[in-house]
Amino acid sequence: MFVAELKSDVLKGIVNIISTLIDEVKFTITSEGMTLKAVDAAHVAMIEMNLTKGAFESFSAEDTEIGLDLEKVKGVLKLAGSGETIRMEQDDATGKLVFKVGNITRRMSLIDTTGMNDPKVPQLNLTATITVPIEELQKGIRAVESISDHITLKAGPEFFELSCEGDTDSVSLRLDPSSAKISTDSDVCSMFPPDYLANIIKAIPSGTQVDIELDNDYPMKLVFALADGAAKVDYLLAPRIESE
Amino acid sequence: MFVAELKSDVLKGIVNIISTLIDEVKFTITSEGMTLKAVDAAHVAMIEMNLTKGAFESFSAEDTEIGLDLEKVKGVLKLAGSGETIRMEQDDATGKLVFKVGNITRRMSLIDTTGMNDPKVPQLNLTATITVPIEELQKGIRAVESISDHITLKAGPEFFELSCEGDTDSVSLRLDPSSAKISTDSDVCSMFPPDYLANIIKAIPSGTQVDIELDNDYPMKLVFALADGAAKVDYLLAPRIESE
Amino acid sequence: MFVAELKSDVLKGIVNIISTLIDEVKFTITSEGMTLKAVDAAHVAMIEMNLTKGAFESFSAEDTEIGLDLEKVKGVLKLAGSGETIRMEQDDATGKLVFKVGNITRRMSLIDTTGMNDPKVPQLNLTATITVPIEELQKGIRAVESISDHITLKAGPEFFELSCEGDTDSVSLRLDPSSAKISTDSDVCSMFPPDYLANIIKAIPSGTQVDIELDNDYPMKLVFALADGAAKVDYLLAPRIESE
Repeated sequence: MFVAELKSDVLKGIVNIISTLIDEVKFTITSEGMTLKAVDAAHVAMIEMNLTKGAFESFSAEDTEIGLDLEKVKGVLKLAGSGETIRMEQDDATGKLVFKVGNITRRMSLIDTTGMNDPKVPQLNLTATITVPIEELQKGIRAVESISDHITLKAGPEFFELSCEGDTDSVSLRLDPSSAKISTDSDVCSMFPPDYLANIIKAIPSGTQVDIELDNDYPMKLVFALADGAAKVDYLLAPRIESE
Repeated sequence: MFVAELKSDVLKGIVNIISTLIDEVKFTITSEGMTLKAVDAAHVAMIEMNLTKGAFESFSAEDTEIGLDLEKVKGVLKLAGSGETIRMEQDDATGKLVFKVGNITRRMSLIDTTGMNDPKVPQLNLTATITVPIEELQKGIRAVESISDHITLKAGPEFFELSCEGDTDSVSLRLDPSSAKISTDSDVCSMFPPDYLANIIKAIPSGTQVDIELDNDYPMKLVFALADGAAKVDYLLAPRIESE
Repeated sequence: MFVAELKSDVLKGIVNIISTLIDEVKFTITSEGMTLKAVDAAHVAMIEMNLTKGAFESFSAEDTEIGLDLEKVKGVLKLAGSGETIRMEQDDATGKLVFKVGNITRRMSLIDTTGMNDPKVPQLNLTATITVPIEELQKGIRAVESISDHITLKAGPEFFELSCEGDTDSVSLRLDPSSAKISTDSDVCSMFPPDYLANIIKAIPSGTQVDIELDNDYPMKLVFALADGAAKVDYLLAPRIESE
């Protein structure tokens, strides 16, 4: 059993984040909320998402799983204006998920979740944490797109830098403690694939504060909240390590 | 002889409606206004349009016919801002139609209307009439586009429903007497091709009230007005009948 | 040595104008400002541009030349909001030009200017001068695009006309002394290639007053200012002469 209502903007934020990695998703539902663990096909990035009941306008559920085609859910989102409420209800008889938006009813077949196993999320203990408004990272990502080689993230006690070095040209975004909260004792530096980083950074809604956790030639973690803190997201991205 | 001035928005509304069916159109002009009857190449839908003098800022004409290429008229509409007046004058010497928009003069060759016969418009006496704001139908059409099979329209004394059933998914817009004026004694139901219905519903300007006339496995009629009632449109659409 | 700051809108206006003709540009820099002379590959049009120090927020330079790839500069412009300041500094050690926009640093390799000779700008003494708001010309250009043959510019003591004659259709923009300042004793008329004229007219920012200098079957000149008069542009366009 699963019946819930939520604002279209909250559902849209969630779907935009997840669909940077996968097209089909399994949500694990309990009486307290929904969780999701997903890894992309190339095993380069991983998302862990927790939605508490507080992310919803109303929420009532027993333990269940639902498998969703995100393209279909995006179709439902196009029917809802900003601020409009979307109702979801699992129809136990037909096994479908029924969306209601205003006068519209959309019955959606679910994806079989048999064999969709949750990935094991590694526990990381990363040296540096940098807290920035997502808008700064979005500017940096737009800047590096003209060069589009791997992206280097560096941090030290007094700086954070996102940079990209091409054959003849280079570009960098450099923040100091006046524009980012930086917490590290030593310098750290790792490189990452630009497409993954660009996709997730662009998908995070403006107004969001993001924690970047970073180390030396090691995965990075983006930690942020959606829905006024009721939805928490951890995004892990594997580094690109240069062979010498 | 034909000289008329009208607001660009009125001309745009008219052209958008007609061009859902045809590219070239013959207007029949009298001293009282303009009329048009047109059927699409596949003979699936038909438009009958009456523009009284009241749809124009000024209107002066003797009996004549003008044949227009709608793509060219759309080009003229791009030159006019919203609320700007467009002047049309038939040049008897050259047989061209002269458009004036501000300081711009556009001389357009006309299409030969010989052989462009008016289709015979069938008289239909349909059981149910539903009056709705076009915005509701536009939401419904956006909703069914993801499924895109035939569209079913149903009505009964207490409801109107636009729905679409795919192999695994379905979607419906359901209105009750609180959001639509419904007038029928019995239940009626017909199916229609989604592309025709989508095109005409999207072309009707927002703010328009539409009468849907409906029966069982029978053509439907959309009746609506443009230009504050000075232009009246009947749109007929043939049903899609399932063989069993 | 070259260090300068300017508003992104000023740099954008300059780049938009130049890139109607060429992709790579050589600026000649002195302590007083920057100049540019460029001709397109087909030798149909020519631009002469003078930017005094007043076009910049700050400007400090010794005599030098810089060769820029305009596509890369457009990439920098995308990083700057309207009203934001862009800093440019030549790095003598690496020979690169360093752009700074907010927290972003973009190091750009320069184009070798050896062999990029300035074209010789002909001195023209044209009979008619017409001063118009660029918006009028932009409307006229949009109007002729549906016909897209050569464009005829005509002027006499009491009128200015931009027109285009197709096989069956024609369009014209006609201004009188109430909407354009016209200065000529006799009638003049020349024809021009529509694509060049459309590109430059669309690139000039709205709010600009343009002087059109015109004669009989002779090049035309567009003279206008950017950056509140601190940047002056002469654009010369060769006529298209009909053989009889």
